[in-house]
Parts: sequence; structure tokens; C-alpha cells
Amino acid sequence: MHCIRCRAPANVEVRRHRSAFCAACYPGWFRNQVERAIGEEEMFTRQQRVLVAISGGKDSLALWHALLILGYEADGMYIRLGIGGYSKRSQEASERFAARHGLTLHQVRNQREGKPCAACGTVKRYHFNKVAVDLGYDVVATGHNLDDEAATLFGNVIHWQTDFLGRQGPVLEATHPKLARKVKPLYRLAERDTAAYAIVERIEYILEECPMAVGAKSLLYKDALNRLEESQPGLKQRFLAGFLKRGKEALAGADPVTIRECAECGQPTTAEVCAYCRMRERKRRQLEQRAAAGS
Amino acid sequence: MHCIRCRAPANVEVRRHRSAFCAACYPGWFRNQVERAIGEEEMFTRQQRVLVAISGGKDSLALWHALLILGYEADGMYIRLGIGGYSKRSQEASERFAARHGLTLHQVRNQREGKPCAACGTVKRYHFNKVAVDLGYDVVATGHNLDDEAATLFGNVIHWQTDFLGRQGPVLEATHPKLARKVKPLYRLAERDTAAYAIVERIEYILEECPMAVGAKSLLYKDALNRLEESQPGLKQRFLAGFLKRGKEALAGADPVTIRECAECGQPTTAEVCAYCRMRERKRRQLEQRAAAGS
Repeated sequence: MHCIRCRAPANVEVRRHRSAFCAACYPGWFRNQVERAIGEEEMFTRQQRVLVAISGGKDSLALWHALLILGYEADGMYIRLGIGGYSKRSQEASERFAARHGLTLHQVRNQREGKPCAACGTVKRYHFNKVAVDLGYDVVATGHNLDDEAATLFGNVIHWQTDFLGRQGPVLEATHPKLARKVKPLYRLAERDTAAYAIVERIEYILEECPMAVGAKSLLYKDALNRLEESQPGLKQRFLAGFLKRGKEALAGADPVTIRECAECGQPTTAEVCAYCRMRERKRRQLEQRAAAGS
Repeated sequence: MHCIRCRAPANVEVRRHRSAFCAACYPGWFRNQVERAIGEEEMFTRQQRVLVAISGGKDSLALWHALLILGYEADGMYIRLGIGGYSKRSQEASERFAARHGLTLHQVRNQREGKPCAACGTVKRYHFNKVAVDLGYDVVATGHNLDDEAATLFGNVIHWQTDFLGRQGPVLEATHPKLARKVKPLYRLAERDTAAYAIVERIEYILEECPMAVGAKSLLYKDALNRLEESQPGLKQRFLAGFLKRGKEALAGADPVTIRECAECGQPTTAEVCAYCRMRERKRRQLEQRAAAGS
């Protein structure tokens, strides 16, 4: 197999594109994909300020790295979730990357709220949005890749969550003054593409997955899609692209959404009280009950 | 495990319903499910004439059997596709069942048109519809079960075939005078439920699958769904039910369909010339070319 650009022996194969690249040409192809996603979906410009959600893993660091080389103004933000050694190592990787490249990395501390990954998602969405709006960033960029997006789509389709389906996409517009615009510049790049980019570019990311994610349904969906991709290369990309082109618009009308401000914290939400405040209230009551039972 | 009806030791478990039945109670539960599907979806009444599409496999024979015991007026129809020993054995099983129960079994002969299962589907749809309309049946009933329907839905969703998605369901209305109404009374019963019914009721069906189906994508989709069902019992049923309840209506509007008569054969179609005639024309040209090459 040879690099489709320079005919040197290939290091990285991208089967769904029937392409292969040597280590010298690959990063250029990768960043070109990122640039095309940003341009075609009108995610942001070089005049805007981008806040990148950083976890210390390959996707978020590869994204930050690519944005810098492409000449975008991108700061990072890391949330300390206190998940034992995993959080410690992911924080170190994030700080090391920022220090090495002389970048700004904002940090917020929020203990994880129990096991479910949904709670972690709520915490992250809350803080990334709040910091972006408070500090005047134009947009929040996350490292969600093709596999993440296809798995989320798969889960939402399996359960026909038409409310989520109507909103899923590479760009989530800010439909309220306190809501940051959210974009996913890696949505057309597979998990193995970002891993290859991180390796070729010598990005020191943490390899381990969050220990809380073990048994998460999203991993089952990824596994199911990976098996189908084996026999039908490109299936994941076509699944996501077909949804964005044909499915999404039809489904978006099914559940129109109204954004208002949370009665507790003032942050934007579709409910009376936002998911973050409801979660904290549940936690507070649990602690009260435990204290009462102990006394 | 005990029968939820009579507490005798159970022979058949229906995990997604958290139920189990002994061999004496199981057929009643199965037919009750069929009766509910017929009633709730208003498929047909005891005053109407039903044409059951028969393949000699467990699903079509279990359906025919259940309809007879439930008191419906149901004749069978078998299409001789000429797929070697498989067709011979499936024809024998169908004729044996009809003879044993003193039933009418119509037969049509149509050689299979090459490998793809899609061609076979075209042939079957064409003849079942034509015979039903010509002989004045009110409805065509097929043995499609929950696994079939979930796999078809899965394939249509993976490729976002919104035109098919808008029409998929347990009842396909006759939107043209030459189009028979089509119903799937087993759509809420799993493949293993119909197998268990056929075994308990001593129905002699052919076990072998069509040899042409090896490698069919529908089998990959069934496999993917079965793996997910393992860890999330009831997932297939919820996937299908959620689609019918929330997804279908939203997607139906995306591709409205107009039915007209085929310019060649007069049978109903969405195109200028129907799929069956287009397929025969391709076949005819192939034979001409081969004859020309040989002369």
C-alpha cells in the first residue's frame, strides 16, 4: 500500500475513503478534513474565539492541535471530575499539552455525580456552556468524532428519541443569549483517524478510557456499528451523512423545543429547572437522608 | 421457571415479556398475540377472505395455522421459484400442510431471477398482489415476524431510505384498485416465538433457510440486533414500536408516493414501468446478448 499523495510506503489507511497516507502526508489530509468540516458547516472563522473542551484524550488534544496549526484562536477548558487516578492523569496530559504549546487552559472543578455517564455529560455541558458565555467565546468545540456521533445517532434511533434526533448534528446553534454555539469539527473523522493523528504528531494523550464508561451502552452501539463497518466500509459515515441530509429535517419538526432560563441558576434549559440543578438537588436530598439515617 | 398461566414447569420463555409458558398454554398465548395484532391494527375481519403468502417455513405455516384455529377464512399461495432442492422441499412442506388441513393452496411458477434477494422480493410481491386482486381476496397476509421487521427497519435507517421508512409497517393500505392490502399479523412475535409455536403444534416446516440468502445484509442486521437484545431484552420490540409510534409519521411526509399503472403490464407501480417488468426486460436483453455472442 502506498501514500496516495507521494507514493511512499503508507503508514495510515483510511479504508472508507479507499485512501492511504505516509506519516509525512497524513497530518495534512487530517487537518484538511477538519478545515473542510469547519468551512462547509460554517462552524467558525479565524476572527472568532474558540473554546475547546479538553479531556486529555486523543480526540480533544488532536482537535486543539489541528486548530492551532490551521491558525485558529483556540483556548482549552478542562473540568476536574475527580474520578481517581484517571482524572489525575487526564489533567496532567491536558496541562502538559497546554504548557508545551504555550496555550491557555481554563479549569473548573466539579466532582462527578455518581456513576451514570449521563450525569457526567450534564456537568460538562453546564460548565463548558457557562464558561464560554461568561468569558465571551464565540463557540465551544468538542472532540466528538465520527464513531461518537454514529453511536449517539444509533442509540437515539434505536429508542426513537425524536427530540434528541431533531437536534443532533455537527453544529448546535445558540438559540438563547446564554447558550453558546457548539460545534464538532472532527465529526467526519473516525476514532482511528484521530488516534493515528495523535501518534504521528507525537501528542501525549492518555490512552485509558474513563473507568466509569465500562458497560456504557454507547460502547455496545459502537461495537455493533464496527461489526457492520467490517463488511460494509463507509457504513458509519453514510449512516451519519444520510441522517443529516434526509432524516434530521423530517424528524426535527416532530418535537419543537423552547429554551428558557432555569428558575434556580438562570442558565438556559428546556425545563422549569435545568438538568444540572435537578441533579444537584437530588444529590443534596440523598446526603440529607443519609445524615438523618445516621443520627 | 414456571408457566405464568398454570404454574406447570415452563417449556417456552418469552424474555422480553418476562413470561414463560408450558407447552399446553403457549399456543393460546401465541394466537392471542396474533389476534391482538389483527384487531388493534384492524388488519381484517372473519367476514373477509385472506390470502396467506406461504413459503413452507415456520413463519408462514405458523401464521396460516393460527389464522385457521382463530376462525379466519384463509387460503394459501405458494410461488415456485425453482431454487433447486430447497424449492422442492419447501413446496412439499406447503402442499403437505394444505392437504393435511384440507386447505386451498394456489400456486404460481416463476423462476428466480439471479442471485439478489431483492429480485426474489420483486417476484413475490408481484405475484402475491396480482393473484390476490384477480381472485378477489381482501388482503394478503405475510409471515414477517418481529426480527424480520426490526432488521428491515434497521437496514432502512442505516441508509436513511426515507421513502421506504415512510411506508414500513404492519399494514400497507391499498392505495390503488389493483393494489392488494398487505398485513403482517406476526409483527410482534419473535423468530423464536414462531419456531416454538411450530414445534409445539407439530407443524412440519422446512428448517433450512433459502441458500440464496447466505451473506444477505438482512442477516447482518439481525445479528447486530440480536447482540443488543442480549444485553437489553425487548430492545427489538421497542425499536419497532418506537418507530411506528414516533418515527414513521415524521418520516412519511419526506417522500410522498404516487401510484400509477405500469406501462407494460398494467400492474400498480410508483415508476413508469414496474420493477417486475424492468427486471424481466433486463433478463431478456441478457439472454439476447448471450445468444448473439454464441452465434
